[in-house]
Amino acid sequence: MSKPSIPQGTRDFSPAEVRKRQYIFNTLQAIFEQYGFQPLETPAMENLTTLIGKYGEEGDRLIFKILNNGLHEKKDADKEKLNEEWATMLSKPYNTPKVTERALRYDLTIPFARYVVMHQHELAFPFRRYQMQPVWRADRPQKGRYREFWQCDADVVGSTSLINEAELLCIYRRAFHDLNLPQVVVKINSRKLLAGLAEVCNASEQMMDITIALDKLDKIGWDGVTGELKQRGINDTGIAKIAEIINVTGTNEEKLSALEQIMSTSAVALEGIKELRDTLAYHDTLKDGNWSSELMVDISLARGLNYYTGVIVEVVCNAVKMGSIGGGGRYDDLTGLFGLKNMSGVGVSFGIDRIYDVIEELNLFPEEVASGKQTLILNFGGEDERYALNILQQLRNAGVSAEIYPDSVKFDKQMKYANKRNVTYVIIVGEEERKANKLSLKNFVTGEQELLSIEEAINIIQG
Amino acid sequence: MSKPSIPQGTRDFSPAEVRKRQYIFNTLQAIFEQYGFQPLETPAMENLTTLIGKYGEEGDRLIFKILNNGLHEKKDADKEKLNEEWATMLSKPYNTPKVTERALRYDLTIPFARYVVMHQHELAFPFRRYQMQPVWRADRPQKGRYREFWQCDADVVGSTSLINEAELLCIYRRAFHDLNLPQVVVKINSRKLLAGLAEVCNASEQMMDITIALDKLDKIGWDGVTGELKQRGINDTGIAKIAEIINVTGTNEEKLSALEQIMSTSAVALEGIKELRDTLAYHDTLKDGNWSSELMVDISLARGLNYYTGVIVEVVCNAVKMGSIGGGGRYDDLTGLFGLKNMSGVGVSFGIDRIYDVIEELNLFPEEVASGKQTLILNFGGEDERYALNILQQLRNAGVSAEIYPDSVKFDKQMKYANKRNVTYVIIVGEEERKANKLSLKNFVTGEQELLSIEEAINIIQG
Repeated sequence: MSKPSIPQGTRDFSPAEVRKRQYIFNTLQAIFEQYGFQPLETPAMENLTTLIGKYGEEGDRLIFKILNNGLHEKKDADKEKLNEEWATMLSKPYNTPKVTERALRYDLTIPFARYVVMHQHELAFPFRRYQMQPVWRADRPQKGRYREFWQCDADVVGSTSLINEAELLCIYRRAFHDLNLPQVVVKINSRKLLAGLAEVCNASEQMMDITIALDKLDKIGWDGVTGELKQRGINDTGIAKIAEIINVTGTNEEKLSALEQIMSTSAVALEGIKELRDTLAYHDTLKDGNWSSELMVDISLARGLNYYTGVIVEVVCNAVKMGSIGGGGRYDDLTGLFGLKNMSGVGVSFGIDRIYDVIEELNLFPEEVASGKQTLILNFGGEDERYALNILQQLRNAGVSAEIYPDSVKFDKQMKYANKRNVTYVIIVGEEERKANKLSLKNFVTGEQELLSIEEAINIIQG
Repeated sequence: MSKPSIPQGTRDFSPAEVRKRQYIFNTLQAIFEQYGFQPLETPAMENLTTLIGKYGEEGDRLIFKILNNGLHEKKDADKEKLNEEWATMLSKPYNTPKVTERALRYDLTIPFARYVVMHQHELAFPFRRYQMQPVWRADRPQKGRYREFWQCDADVVGSTSLINEAELLCIYRRAFHDLNLPQVVVKINSRKLLAGLAEVCNASEQMMDITIALDKLDKIGWDGVTGELKQRGINDTGIAKIAEIINVTGTNEEKLSALEQIMSTSAVALEGIKELRDTLAYHDTLKDGNWSSELMVDISLARGLNYYTGVIVEVVCNAVKMGSIGGGGRYDDLTGLFGLKNMSGVGVSFGIDRIYDVIEELNLFPEEVASGKQTLILNFGGEDERYALNILQQLRNAGVSAEIYPDSVKFDKQMKYANKRNVTYVIIVGEEERKANKLSLKNFVTGEQELLSIEEAINIIQG
């Protein structure tokens, strides 16, 4: 028998890992609920037609497709068609409904759009939903990149108000505050500023070229970006203008004022600036002064090649070397893919796996999260066992998390279990304790041991 | 564009449904944690070799297999092999690693066994884990049967103590008590009694035949069972013995005493009776007198064709017409499938979807579970909006779940939203309220409206 294993790029989550992940999920969920977002869950499997063509050619290739069942039970005539389709599939990996018509969810956005379109007549708009579920991608696995990973999205559809943008900024800041992450910067920009930037460079058609080059500023520096801009045909005047714009510094309002001057000829840039100002003003009314993160206008923020049309946002934690831990923005037409037009939306995403890694690296998981607070009663069998079970029942009635070692094996073996299990307290009830109607409570962290009544022990454990 | 849809047998869970499901999950999780069970999560995808052959031939057919990616990018030589495998697959749906080498989780038990074997050197045994995750089966969808559904299992491996059985009985009773389910019966039996039954019928080889027939007692009645037993070659003396045994009535102890008499010649039956007696005694020490369910020895309980070897258990809710809502038992050799011998285990499973249906049918979900307790602030724009945002911020600081309607559209439209959204309170802040530094709080359930200070409103909402 070969050693069992799991597929490359997937993970088992041990008890400690599940608890730490739940701590993150629970923290985010409480915030979403407080902000009036509602939970949604969609199936792991979607129809392949729902997914294909939505993520670009690269995406299509990375979708995990599910083989139709019962292929071997088909009639011969059907098998002929199956064979034809199979041949097609070996040259192009889709449009093969007889071989595969279902696939695993690739992100949470497309299923969300599909859900909104399917339920448009029942939903109350604006519809605010949050969703925390796994997605699957056939990417090459590498450190920190998995084939099964969790996304956590919050979106509002059916409202163009910038209050939504401000609320989502607050959700980000509140979340990273509640998770105790230090040196968090929430960066904000607008696709309209990027369009304006292209306009003032006299290269309106090349907004995406400029965006792609700018997006690499963090990685390749200004010299690298200059090279790329030249290569993409932006002239020196344009490059000088871009340099001037991305070198703008100061407070957010100082930056916006400077940009307003530099891009005064671009209507779309001025619109973007106004939107950022309004968003920041809403945010300032809604924010909590205690939040430790920084909110920063960053004109170089581009958010890659996606469907955003207005305000965009990205979160980094400067306390560790890691990519962004969140991002999002406004998109004007998401549900249009499924036939429902004019449904503007705005959303943010939390990078759960990276957030986990940051908290782990900085050792910021609260102490009791990983182990649970657990009490173990040792088992010496016979009369002692009966007495121990009675204590167990009383502990649980009082709401204490407790277990008994189920077999009356050697003391050492039971203590070894307690140690490996990382319990907080061990209760020892031998003849002496039983006759005195007491118990010995050992604090497994400090090593201290006391002879106590059950009530006293419960008080200490619950304290 | 065709209307979007989801695959047959899968479900979207709306906000209200997610909340109700979470209520069930949270209730169970709290109990598992209190009883010292630890959470485990395994990936949705397993290697096909891990799953194939573990669920019988029928099971193998119902496993959802995932197509390998990048088939169309293979070289011609590889494609030839692919084609060969494809031909094989059309006659037998597995052993085709070039076409498919991964599959979706079919249950939680096999992945658990696989996990225990992979991590046997790190785990503290006895290892108690609970797991609540979806599984996928290509069954024909029908009412109450889905292709994606949730299982919720709690198991202990590495201990033969009957304290484990008793703890799992307590978990069942506590869970259905906490979920307020009426008329719940937890039935208990032992595979050893079934073996004894075959023995005293002089048909030891036919324990499975007798078990299969008996398992249908609820559905086809005693006459039907008699017919089937005859057909399976059990003679009249045997059938009379079986009738005598399943007609035993009384309290659990009365039943066990009677069975002890009737099956006194069977060593295995006597062992089963002792195990049931010990389990019940442990249970009585650990139980809480408030639990409303009944715990009943039921000699006709068989739990189908599975791997149980000792105590078996099943739960029904007699308040509704529905199959069992939970079941489990002891299995002596689960991890042996993956090369780790002598690892006895015992576990129970909760039928989440059925439990949901029972609670829904009996209208037992707590009132606030489905909607969340939500407060909506209406938005009249301009100065009123600024004032409203300020109130929103104060509500959230006080821990209240609240949202503002993000656009200052017509009053009617906002009220329609409030209605559809099923909010508990609506806050109205127009010029009058703003100038008085107050707000109007409308209780959306009673229709009552009051002019209040923010502090007063917070007190009422939190009350």
